[in-house]
Amino acid sequence: MASVDVPVALLGYGTVGAAVNRLLNEQADDIERATGHRLRVVKALVRDLRKERSWPAAEGVLTTNVDDILDDSSITVVAEVMGGVEETAGYVLDCLRRGKNVVTANKQLVARRGLELFATASEAGVQVRFEASVCAAIPVIKVLRESLVVTNVHRVLGIVNGTTNFMLTEMEAGKTYDEALAEAQAKGYAEADPTDDVSGADAAAKMAILATVAFNSRYELADVDTVGIDKIDPLAVAAARELEMVIRLIGAARLENGKVDVRVGPAFVDRHHPLAAVEGAFNAVMLQGDAIREITLEGPGAGGVETASAVIADMVSVIGTMGTGFLQNDAAWRQLPKLGPGEHRSPFYFHLKVEDRPGVLARVAEALAERDVSIARLLQHPNGEGAVLHVVTHEAREGSLKDALDAISGFDEVRKPPLAYPVVSERGVAELGWA
Amino acid sequence: MASVDVPVALLGYGTVGAAVNRLLNEQADDIERATGHRLRVVKALVRDLRKERSWPAAEGVLTTNVDDILDDSSITVVAEVMGGVEETAGYVLDCLRRGKNVVTANKQLVARRGLELFATASEAGVQVRFEASVCAAIPVIKVLRESLVVTNVHRVLGIVNGTTNFMLTEMEAGKTYDEALAEAQAKGYAEADPTDDVSGADAAAKMAILATVAFNSRYELADVDTVGIDKIDPLAVAAARELEMVIRLIGAARLENGKVDVRVGPAFVDRHHPLAAVEGAFNAVMLQGDAIREITLEGPGAGGVETASAVIADMVSVIGTMGTGFLQNDAAWRQLPKLGPGEHRSPFYFHLKVEDRPGVLARVAEALAERDVSIARLLQHPNGEGAVLHVVTHEAREGSLKDALDAISGFDEVRKPPLAYPVVSERGVAELGWA
Repeated sequence: MASVDVPVALLGYGTVGAAVNRLLNEQADDIERATGHRLRVVKALVRDLRKERSWPAAEGVLTTNVDDILDDSSITVVAEVMGGVEETAGYVLDCLRRGKNVVTANKQLVARRGLELFATASEAGVQVRFEASVCAAIPVIKVLRESLVVTNVHRVLGIVNGTTNFMLTEMEAGKTYDEALAEAQAKGYAEADPTDDVSGADAAAKMAILATVAFNSRYELADVDTVGIDKIDPLAVAAARELEMVIRLIGAARLENGKVDVRVGPAFVDRHHPLAAVEGAFNAVMLQGDAIREITLEGPGAGGVETASAVIADMVSVIGTMGTGFLQNDAAWRQLPKLGPGEHRSPFYFHLKVEDRPGVLARVAEALAERDVSIARLLQHPNGEGAVLHVVTHEAREGSLKDALDAISGFDEVRKPPLAYPVVSERGVAELGWA
Repeated sequence: MASVDVPVALLGYGTVGAAVNRLLNEQADDIERATGHRLRVVKALVRDLRKERSWPAAEGVLTTNVDDILDDSSITVVAEVMGGVEETAGYVLDCLRRGKNVVTANKQLVARRGLELFATASEAGVQVRFEASVCAAIPVIKVLRESLVVTNVHRVLGIVNGTTNFMLTEMEAGKTYDEALAEAQAKGYAEADPTDDVSGADAAAKMAILATVAFNSRYELADVDTVGIDKIDPLAVAAARELEMVIRLIGAARLENGKVDVRVGPAFVDRHHPLAAVEGAFNAVMLQGDAIREITLEGPGAGGVETASAVIADMVSVIGTMGTGFLQNDAAWRQLPKLGPGEHRSPFYFHLKVEDRPGVLARVAEALAERDVSIARLLQHPNGEGAVLHVVTHEAREGSLKDALDAISGFDEVRKPPLAYPVVSERGVAELGWA
């Protein structure tokens, strides 16, 4: 097939934009072999024409006027690599309405304005792709939308924030939270203000996107139940080791009996679970579905070149499917109800700092049993003048556990109200057997 | 976009074929939402029309005459799920020449006749896709060809045989080779004649396909250097544990300085390496490339429904890209030279059973040093009346190590000629840092 020249535009020309332009130049032959098309950046929207760039654009490519892109009908593919939400959403929606396919690397844009983007793209008969918005070069969106098209995916489990995973790996090796944070900042993984990472907010945006795509159901960022890693007690880190588990910040999206639940928080992960093996700043996403049991994708979840590679893969996929009707649906075409508060079921870990008096364990066990929470594993260690009880429950209703812990917190013998961690231990191969 | 009816044909209607037909029926709405097309099986080539089927085909679909498919110009997509090589290759080539896109789940067909299939498809301007031929539903081919299009992938490391991985996991837990094999047979992972799995032949076929796709270079099955797991010594299993490693049957394809090397054999894998975490009958493939550092995909590497899911994903991808020029190139358009025998470099493990006499270690160390092989770790344990030396080398030329081991085997004090295992320990995140 004869080669076709494809002019493309970029919104933004920072680290990622410059890397996209560089890779498109350097890998033009590979792209042509895969698609029969040669991609060429003809316009890039910037604020400042004179700023120095890591890979300079050709003469006449940079512009401060978005109309140079919008009005150019030869541009059918636009990559948004500028960041930001409100102004950026305006540009992207304008591009879609003008019949241009859009690829974006912007997780906040997709998590906050995705539903509008999907609907607008669907109406205009163009595609919006956003692989780079979740875990950079790990191709989880493409796999969900294209490879698992006949699998009803019912669960997505992910380690989708590299900074906190690095910190938790360091804490596992003996560092305190503050030492681990300082180390992450020294390595450039964490910002000076690490709130977005350690609070779980960054992971929550990615999980909202993954839940929306996996279940094709509108899911708002604000609905993600989020707990950060700043609440983790050092006693829990030690207990995890003793229980042959590790603590990870886990994003979990589930579709159960037609209801959706999405949450992010520290969890105890069994040492034999694939997610326990994810160390340092890496990300991993496990997809569980009917026909595939489970597939796990792991890799670096950030980085300029990694992100650029995902942006270009999306551009190439758009070009390879243009005009065929592929992925021109609304990615969130239905609205599934959310699981009610407390309805979520899981095994849990928690620990209690208690006075070392006879009868404490009996009272705790009774408070749990009354609410149908049964104990699977128990450790007791001396702690100062008292003791610490480490409890792993069997699968329980979260609301029932919370009620029990509220009651237990009221006991005279209990010194500190407990935080509960879900336990991730099962895996598809054990659950479902060999098909 | 209005729905388009797409008649498709199957070559074969066994377990996988029936599952393809069932999933196409049950998931027709999902497929239509993704592609704007409804896929319908209109013909399926079988040997015996009256055989009982797990999911019966509709009236008039089954046929014993391939011309019913070849001569039907409305059929543009054919899935080959019949197995076999020679006769099957004839059918597939005929389909391609008639302008029909072909999807195949047949690893032996692609590993043995792939180059002919690719060239024929390219000439006819149609696609041949083969996701299901390697690791069933793990979408490694799609990720390599579409997501990593601008990454020069230079290394593919894989656990691509579930049977042997199950056996090695069992041996790690204390079982003998024979016990592990019996267990694999009892669970239905291993055939009555397990030769194809334990000899590494099955893994070699998959690695030949992966190397061809990753490097776009013709690579013949016969060129894969293959060692099976039946040669593993129980002493090595114990030593791996002591060295904090595990033994896995690793397929490795490398592109180094323009030369390709592909091999399959037991290797020592560092406990912190992602492939060490792959347990039981699961498969995993790690792809390392310039722009992505490394991406690992893990999941069940076999199973009828899993395979059917991958076949349909390929059919959907063909339909979503038909007529755009996408992936209509020859997947193996170049011929890279092979790395010469012995030129491969790696750290290695080996052990020696020796007489417990003064000077043995000195002679061994000298034989290694003379050939530029340096020792990284050393363990010595008593063994009957003698001793066992466990040696881990730094990275060394394989040929030099072999020369040294040949020399050492000739020593009077050495009781058994040693087998060397490559050591897999580095990972991208450590090698390349944070980009």
